[in-house]
Amino acid sequence: MTTQHRVPAFAPLPASLPATVPFVGPNALERQNGRPFRARLGANENGFGAPPAAIAAMAEAAAQSWKYGDENAFDLKNALADQLDVASDRIIVGEGIDGLLGLLVRLMVAPGDAVVTSDGAYPTFNYHVAGFGGVLHKVPYRDDHEDPFALAAKAAEVGARLTYIANPDNPMGTWHDSATILQMLEILPEDGLLVLDEAYVEFAPEGTAPPMAVDDPRLIRFRTFSKAYGMAGVRIGYGIGHPDLIAGFHRIRNHFGVGPIAQAGARAALAERDWLSATLAKVARARARIGEIAAENGIQALESATNFVAVDTGRNGAFARALVAGLGEEGVFVRMPGVAPLDRCIRISVGPDDELDVLAEVLPRVLDRLRRS
Amino acid sequence: MTTQHRVPAFAPLPASLPATVPFVGPNALERQNGRPFRARLGANENGFGAPPAAIAAMAEAAAQSWKYGDENAFDLKNALADQLDVASDRIIVGEGIDGLLGLLVRLMVAPGDAVVTSDGAYPTFNYHVAGFGGVLHKVPYRDDHEDPFALAAKAAEVGARLTYIANPDNPMGTWHDSATILQMLEILPEDGLLVLDEAYVEFAPEGTAPPMAVDDPRLIRFRTFSKAYGMAGVRIGYGIGHPDLIAGFHRIRNHFGVGPIAQAGARAALAERDWLSATLAKVARARARIGEIAAENGIQALESATNFVAVDTGRNGAFARALVAGLGEEGVFVRMPGVAPLDRCIRISVGPDDELDVLAEVLPRVLDRLRRS
Repeated sequence: MTTQHRVPAFAPLPASLPATVPFVGPNALERQNGRPFRARLGANENGFGAPPAAIAAMAEAAAQSWKYGDENAFDLKNALADQLDVASDRIIVGEGIDGLLGLLVRLMVAPGDAVVTSDGAYPTFNYHVAGFGGVLHKVPYRDDHEDPFALAAKAAEVGARLTYIANPDNPMGTWHDSATILQMLEILPEDGLLVLDEAYVEFAPEGTAPPMAVDDPRLIRFRTFSKAYGMAGVRIGYGIGHPDLIAGFHRIRNHFGVGPIAQAGARAALAERDWLSATLAKVARARARIGEIAAENGIQALESATNFVAVDTGRNGAFARALVAGLGEEGVFVRMPGVAPLDRCIRISVGPDDELDVLAEVLPRVLDRLRRS
Repeated sequence: MTTQHRVPAFAPLPASLPATVPFVGPNALERQNGRPFRARLGANENGFGAPPAAIAAMAEAAAQSWKYGDENAFDLKNALADQLDVASDRIIVGEGIDGLLGLLVRLMVAPGDAVVTSDGAYPTFNYHVAGFGGVLHKVPYRDDHEDPFALAAKAAEVGARLTYIANPDNPMGTWHDSATILQMLEILPEDGLLVLDEAYVEFAPEGTAPPMAVDDPRLIRFRTFSKAYGMAGVRIGYGIGHPDLIAGFHRIRNHFGVGPIAQAGARAALAERDWLSATLAKVARARARIGEIAAENGIQALESATNFVAVDTGRNGAFARALVAGLGEEGVFVRMPGVAPLDRCIRISVGPDDELDVLAEVLPRVLDRLRRS
């Protein structure tokens, strides 16, 4: 049967959005390539895996997943509250930081409202801002770092409802100390939030994260089980902020969206302190090795407080793009920053030794080919 | 540290929403009661569990969940396309029907737009409509069925962007045949969609679901792994519609929101045709037994095409509410419709024999107490 009818028009805001989004995940890239990657070093995943206790807890929860989960994530929030030493009504659990950023934008940003971020920072935040009609104002990086004072000054200038900074930063891996982040709040407009994305903070030196005791109601921070805990596919993260702000999420969220498997995995992971220490040590060693591999090839790793390393090719964006493509053709998945001057770098996620061996084998060959061409 | 600052104001639309939502899940109810239910028969879960093959697939996927999943759900969509005999670009996979309904409302409904549903139908749909500023118009049930022609007539009258009907219906368990649903499209306004919620359709008689070959671009239908497949906690469902409509979801969804564990579980479940037949038979037997238990107690089960049974107490909403509360005090979790005249009924989900044994034991005692008071 066919009819003469048409698809009804979308609402004006979604109708104005681009029909496609550019972010292509590793599975889709593997399908395009027609084969799996030899080294999966591009999505800032934790190739050392999730805690075995978390994997076991998820397997056990799978058998009980005929039940709806706890829409309040009561036990998980209590475990987080204990570990972070904050009240549980300051915590919101959601479908990864991506999901929480979407809810935050929806909660705070009306069409036409100003939002500030860095030019080259997390694209998914920008996607959500556009999705709810916010107007993005971008501030350049300074010396490969996000520029806290330029961000706050721009926020004051445009009256930003949200000002985004990742600390440590993605895609550059650089970071600021806690005091610098807190100084941002001094010049931030009264009616806007500082959105502090701490996805990578477990990898960073002491003194990077502001103390949890900071209770400025204009600060919301986000953390995740995707990175240090190696659970990117589980889709679970959390936000920490003033109880009145956190209460706003409950007005709009998909209440049963974080299922019992994710909650069980996260609770088990949180208890694995020794595992976490060991994983952080592995990540630090892998980061150092990426630095060595880069140096052996005449390119320069930036210092990183994350589970990835930005490596400066010493050339321009066209060269770096060719390098990412060349590595991809040889089965080495890495990514790169999207805008100049950051795009002189490629971004290599840490991984186990055998994957870094592949990188060490392939990189000289691809670089040599590019340098001759 | 405390400061003199305040939480910045929410955007006007979320600021206008109620601070709390009324839907309390079974885990929260158990916490309130201070003990687990003896019989969990209130959330339309499938107490017979998920297919063992799906549980095994999820356990296996958990070990690989350090990877981001496939944002396109490529393999799952192909498996669904094969089984349903539709093109895969007509399918959108999302975080349960709840998540997909939220996206659909966001895609189609601007603030002030009209939306039509039945008075007493699925509250989470209404929650999403309110959340995006839509204006709900409600049509009464007729003889304990949603009223397709009244819904379509109201949609034409108010120019509804969305007209919601569940077939079979929740909370009453009643249903219409395919031809009736298709006749709704004849009188639906040109610039609106028919939202056909088929969460329970696997339990319904042949001839309930319109053929997949129907390609009216004003029809979107939703299905789930939560009910027949016993995977409510996994949070995975799908929509089927015109490719141009489905493409709209990609503009606004949380692309990595459905993780690899859920995708693996759903793929494995889809292949379990014999398991599904056996489960549907168990559900039918349990449904019949609930009818018998009701009859033994002088109350009347409505005919149901779902995994739950609406039971007419023959009294009013106050009586039914007292019955639900009394059963709850004795550890039997059931729910009931929220509005008159449906609220003369209680809603009992199917479950294994031992849980129905508890119902059979407790129901006479509670009814007797209420009838004497």
